Amino acid sequence: MHSRWLGKRITLAHGAGGRAMRELITEIIAPAFDNPLLAPLEDQARIPAEFLQAGESLAFTTDSYVVSPIIFPGGDIGKLAVCGTVNDLAVGGAQPRWLSCGLILEEGLPIDTLIAVLASMGAAAREAGVCIVTGDTKVVGRGAADAIFINTAGIGTIPRGRHTGPRNVRAGDKLVINGTLGDHGIAVMAARNDLALQIPVRSDCAPLNGLIDVMFTAAPGLRWLRDCTRGGLATVANEFAEEGGFSLHLDEAALPVADAVRGACEILGLDPLYLANEGKLAALVAAEDCEALIAAMRTHPLGCDAAVIGEVHAERKGLVVLRSRFGGERVVDLIDGEQLPRIC
Amino acid sequence: MHSRWLGKRITLAHGAGGRAMRELITEIIAPAFDNPLLAPLEDQARIPAEFLQAGESLAFTTDSYVVSPIIFPGGDIGKLAVCGTVNDLAVGGAQPRWLSCGLILEEGLPIDTLIAVLASMGAAAREAGVCIVTGDTKVVGRGAADAIFINTAGIGTIPRGRHTGPRNVRAGDKLVINGTLGDHGIAVMAARNDLALQIPVRSDCAPLNGLIDVMFTAAPGLRWLRDCTRGGLATVANEFAEEGGFSLHLDEAALPVADAVRGACEILGLDPLYLANEGKLAALVAAEDCEALIAAMRTHPLGCDAAVIGEVHAERKGLVVLRSRFGGERVVDLIDGEQLPRIC
Repeated sequence: MHSRWLGKRITLAHGAGGRAMRELITEIIAPAFDNPLLAPLEDQARIPAEFLQAGESLAFTTDSYVVSPIIFPGGDIGKLAVCGTVNDLAVGGAQPRWLSCGLILEEGLPIDTLIAVLASMGAAAREAGVCIVTGDTKVVGRGAADAIFINTAGIGTIPRGRHTGPRNVRAGDKLVINGTLGDHGIAVMAARNDLALQIPVRSDCAPLNGLIDVMFTAAPGLRWLRDCTRGGLATVANEFAEEGGFSLHLDEAALPVADAVRGACEILGLDPLYLANEGKLAALVAAEDCEALIAAMRTHPLGCDAAVIGEVHAERKGLVVLRSRFGGERVVDLIDGEQLPRIC
Repeated sequence: MHSRWLGKRITLAHGAGGRAMRELITEIIAPAFDNPLLAPLEDQARIPAEFLQAGESLAFTTDSYVVSPIIFPGGDIGKLAVCGTVNDLAVGGAQPRWLSCGLILEEGLPIDTLIAVLASMGAAAREAGVCIVTGDTKVVGRGAADAIFINTAGIGTIPRGRHTGPRNVRAGDKLVINGTLGDHGIAVMAARNDLALQIPVRSDCAPLNGLIDVMFTAAPGLRWLRDCTRGGLATVANEFAEEGGFSLHLDEAALPVADAVRGACEILGLDPLYLANEGKLAALVAAEDCEALIAAMRTHPLGCDAAVIGEVHAERKGLVVLRSRFGGERVVDLIDGEQLPRIC
């Protein structure tokens, strides 16, 4: 089916609403996401009432992906565009269900690259158990965008009675993470042509909804979750502390960091706390549920390095404090500038 | 509140997840869309179960907007990003409810321009009765995007029992449009610096959901609607005919085209049938309901030029046939190339 597309490139006509665009959609895009809700190819997907259960709330999120390069060890922009949005839904307690896909393509993009990215999106969607049910394609002239940008919006359903957020957090609650910090940031950095380092790190890009399901089942005292993406764990910890009106005390010795990432950080002068992740979450949990939570997380492939890394304190509201390996303390602030642009 | 932003420009730090991004979101973006579902500024909006009624289906759509220039007579990229997505939901029979806003900003974009575009989005959302409840902001380096791209995804609710689509279309059904063709296409074309024409045409960019509500109430026999955007009426008519398995016969003399648009088309060698619109819909309706439908549409400001422009025939399936003013007939095909890139 794809043979007549071999070696072809995206032209402005592929975004113009006419025959070329229709062929691109029906022959290349829709088959990658094949599912019954997408099939009518109307301007909107219709999600029948019977797909929703009484008492369920909806979660709704969006993210645009502009990562450069678009392919990196452990993933590509397509996988990222599905996992990132799935994770934004799941950390809110939602079961991710339906995604949209908005493509902005640069004139001249090889169709082969597009096919690979779409295949990756389709595979990630199947892995996460979501359907890409609606989409849009725009083409801009050469130089007006950088190869491909993808926006995915997502709808999830939140089971009745499941609430997460700052309301329930108490002093003594534990901060838990599901694995090593900074893999995505270092993998993308290493994939850039301007970095002459060979670093054996793969992005951690993965859909976290399966792990999060396990966590909600194991720990009724799960309070508040966020995924650690741009800005890393430091940013999420600061958001928790500031929005929740408490302080978070992190234990440096407990932070899981892969040796290769630690080495790269030392060479490059980077702090793994601020590095981007795409398959990591931070969760606050009642102290009495913490052990059960960690045990449950470790049964899941994406949680086998789960660790308790900090604790909620009532004093010094809004601050994140790191207790170093050597017993000292420092405040972990938000970054003012940017550590690495176009990381996701 | 905006004073310290005066004269500033977007930097890469505004997309990096740290303090600069948070300030941009809390001081510039969120206030433009102010509403309770957006207020928590979580990674996902939570839409409580009580916002949904039993038996309602959901409609879900997405569109990226890359129009150039970003400001044109009658609108801008922000207004377009709200109206376009509202219209995609409404033509499917849905009441548009919640929108997302994904911004891709080019480093160097003046903050004033961003503020103006966001204000325009907020105003359009209020006009359409929808809330922008979740969002995302990315910044790419200078030259990696063109000023600003916006993706909006939208969720609507479809009342129980409201079905549109090809299933119910019958020979003899009428094709109706709500007003003049091609205003958006000509307005954007005229706004481009490379066109040295002064053409007094404003984009028709508008939210059609209010008009469509009126139409569903007036005409139980309303069969199938689409908005005529990229590719114009010709494209929608072809989609109707091809997907529905019938032919559409258009009456050239009945097509509403503003004098200034007709004049510009003659000078530029363009066909108004293919020009983009952003506030126009084509609707198929049972013949017996047509008169009531047109009368109802004309009571609405966006339907005062409503007209019957064609008819469904059973023969010559898949074709769109135009009967000219002079009695001849020609087939109106899909365009192969593109008439004007980046029109929406």
